[in-house]
Amino acid sequence: MSATYRFAVAPSGFKESLSAQDAARAIAEGLLRVVPDAEIDLIPLVDGGEGTAQALASATGGRLVHRTATGPVGEPVATHFALLGGPAHGPRTAVVEMAAVAGLGLVPPDRRDPVSTTTYGVGELIRAALDAGAHRILVGCGDSGTSDGGAGALQALGARLLDADGSELPPGGGSLRRLSRIDASGLDPRLSEAEMLVACNPYNVLCGPQGVARVFGPQKGATGHQVEELSEALDHWAGVLARDVRPRLCGAPGSAPPDALRHGPGTGASGGLGAGLAALGARLLPRFEVLLDHLDLDARLARADLVITAEGALDRQTPRGKVPAEVARRAKLFGRPVLALAGTIGEGAQQVRESGVDAYSGILPAPVGLAEALDRGGEFLADASERALRMVLIGIGLTPTGAPGHRAAASGEALAQAG
Amino acid sequence: MSATYRFAVAPSGFKESLSAQDAARAIAEGLLRVVPDAEIDLIPLVDGGEGTAQALASATGGRLVHRTATGPVGEPVATHFALLGGPAHGPRTAVVEMAAVAGLGLVPPDRRDPVSTTTYGVGELIRAALDAGAHRILVGCGDSGTSDGGAGALQALGARLLDADGSELPPGGGSLRRLSRIDASGLDPRLSEAEMLVACNPYNVLCGPQGVARVFGPQKGATGHQVEELSEALDHWAGVLARDVRPRLCGAPGSAPPDALRHGPGTGASGGLGAGLAALGARLLPRFEVLLDHLDLDARLARADLVITAEGALDRQTPRGKVPAEVARRAKLFGRPVLALAGTIGEGAQQVRESGVDAYSGILPAPVGLAEALDRGGEFLADASERALRMVLIGIGLTPTGAPGHRAAASGEALAQAG
Repeated sequence: MSATYRFAVAPSGFKESLSAQDAARAIAEGLLRVVPDAEIDLIPLVDGGEGTAQALASATGGRLVHRTATGPVGEPVATHFALLGGPAHGPRTAVVEMAAVAGLGLVPPDRRDPVSTTTYGVGELIRAALDAGAHRILVGCGDSGTSDGGAGALQALGARLLDADGSELPPGGGSLRRLSRIDASGLDPRLSEAEMLVACNPYNVLCGPQGVARVFGPQKGATGHQVEELSEALDHWAGVLARDVRPRLCGAPGSAPPDALRHGPGTGASGGLGAGLAALGARLLPRFEVLLDHLDLDARLARADLVITAEGALDRQTPRGKVPAEVARRAKLFGRPVLALAGTIGEGAQQVRESGVDAYSGILPAPVGLAEALDRGGEFLADASERALRMVLIGIGLTPTGAPGHRAAASGEALAQAG
Repeated sequence: MSATYRFAVAPSGFKESLSAQDAARAIAEGLLRVVPDAEIDLIPLVDGGEGTAQALASATGGRLVHRTATGPVGEPVATHFALLGGPAHGPRTAVVEMAAVAGLGLVPPDRRDPVSTTTYGVGELIRAALDAGAHRILVGCGDSGTSDGGAGALQALGARLLDADGSELPPGGGSLRRLSRIDASGLDPRLSEAEMLVACNPYNVLCGPQGVARVFGPQKGATGHQVEELSEALDHWAGVLARDVRPRLCGAPGSAPPDALRHGPGTGASGGLGAGLAALGARLLPRFEVLLDHLDLDARLARADLVITAEGALDRQTPRGKVPAEVARRAKLFGRPVLALAGTIGEGAQQVRESGVDAYSGILPAPVGLAEALDRGGEFLADASERALRMVLIGIGLTPTGAPGHRAAASGEALAQAG
């Protein structure tokens, strides 16, 4: 047998269309039509949002633990967390995916009121993970349907959020404006022993003009008035968290300056869940640093002749912490060429080239509506992968042969022909 | 200055969106974003249909002659034919583009009645070309709105189509069923001296199951009943043409057997115009053989490092005489790689690879409706050209390094990761 091509296929999922696993399989199908004996390494990637727990459980030989918990609008939902498998080194690790219990997909469209949705279920899952013996908890952020700064999660873990009259606040970020103090005395004591890592997009911050209420509030259903209301509430929340929670847990008053909770990288993750968990001592880390080590990503990219990544959309957000940019950045450490495929090539997509994506292509074969594009995502992605690889292969052996003298003549001719 | 890439850009127009010239310019714009010093030869191609006269006039340094003539529904239309320029060899050549005077675009949607539309204006333009001194007339077929077998064109050139009572038939293919005989005595005598070449798709035939009425009637607005009516009428028309017209012009009775008019390559071109003109002694030729010599296409493809072609759609019809397949076939004679871009990748598109297209891609960046796709065709094509070239350039230097032993190991790993 002769040498063949090695392709690393490392896509994100396509939101509302394909899981990362399905996307990886579709791409592989297309590539194999062109190079039937290709060696293809499927590396479906996760970004902390939907599917993260499942994917990491699969990748490490771990398992999902199913539970019922409080959903974002207060009703019980069937949910899960993951207990990771793999080599028995280090502490027992659980993955709590916030989207699985407080995701936007769990908020009925007619109840998209970010002022009142809650992360209470996230706290319940963290508690369940501790019950299951986890000493290390990865909290995956992304695809959230909440904007409560993690207040609900803290309540589920035993904190009491009190107004000036000493009454418990109702759920939701909106009521945090009335927060007078936090009684942290009832917090689950196991929190101080377990290691909590929050996998978040570091570009998301809690407060200020780029704060989570202003950037994400509208897509969660907030009106202009609610956005301002939430911004104020979360700003206030950061101040009280820093004063009442961190000193108690860390034993060092002032160790979490309020501004670190307001503007630190990732504090705005999942509607401010990042800030709430940071106040509990969690470390907020760029999501790919937390998640991708479990996939041995770097070594696998280094082995490939060509890296193919994909996401639902490529646009100006992509370089700000999305899968294709992260894959490209790592592939470039090993000098590997990177091709990206996307359902939508949006405004600013060309910026991904600065992240190391050498070329990218849309996957749609014809004018289609969004519904059809989502419905036929797998088919379109497989076909587009085939087409893209055939284009790449054209380049093998292509050499420039134009000579300047000839060029001048031909350019004149070209203009004449263009009429 | 160092060597650079030479690209031959040889697209068709994109129907209802871009002329071939506009398509070529858009592609060049995209390519230059990637290789700013590329040598680009613009070769906008024509297929005999809309834009053919204009494009050949431009390419040869000729000119358009403007006239008013009878449109397909009987009302006067502003139209034109081309007098070609170029080296003063051979006879003076005119290009009559049937679409410019009897095209589907000139038939209002509420008057799409293929039983009554007429090619009368085509005959008027041929006459005008003879008046202008043309000794050689290229008739471009394609994009027609008629199905009269060229009956109108013959009438305009002096033939009388008579029913059993000796009365002139009304316009349109439907009335040909009542044709009793053709009085060819009044035909313009210059026709026997001029050379007439019809540029047509040889796959289009007048009669039979693949006849023009059955294949194209419905898209011209024919009902099922009308399709059968037209089929019968055109079959009858071929018989009378062979009996009454060809013998008179050629002086050799029986030199055009009726079956040659019914089933010969190109007889069905433009609703049977091919058959009507063939009866006048015109030669029906594969359109690219007639048209592309004026563009020196082969030599220009041979000089390119990479050939880029394009059309509105790539599908199972493409290998049957469409621009991308023809360009690829010729490029392959010189071993040149060929990339094709299309607004729609339709059913059977993969067949174009057998014509020599090495790779192809759609141009749409996102889910869009047909109207937007047509409206933004130039922008989409330029962007897609840029993306495609970047993919091609990834391939430079790509070499397979996978080893079988390694592959087996990695495949197992890949399956585990796919979970």
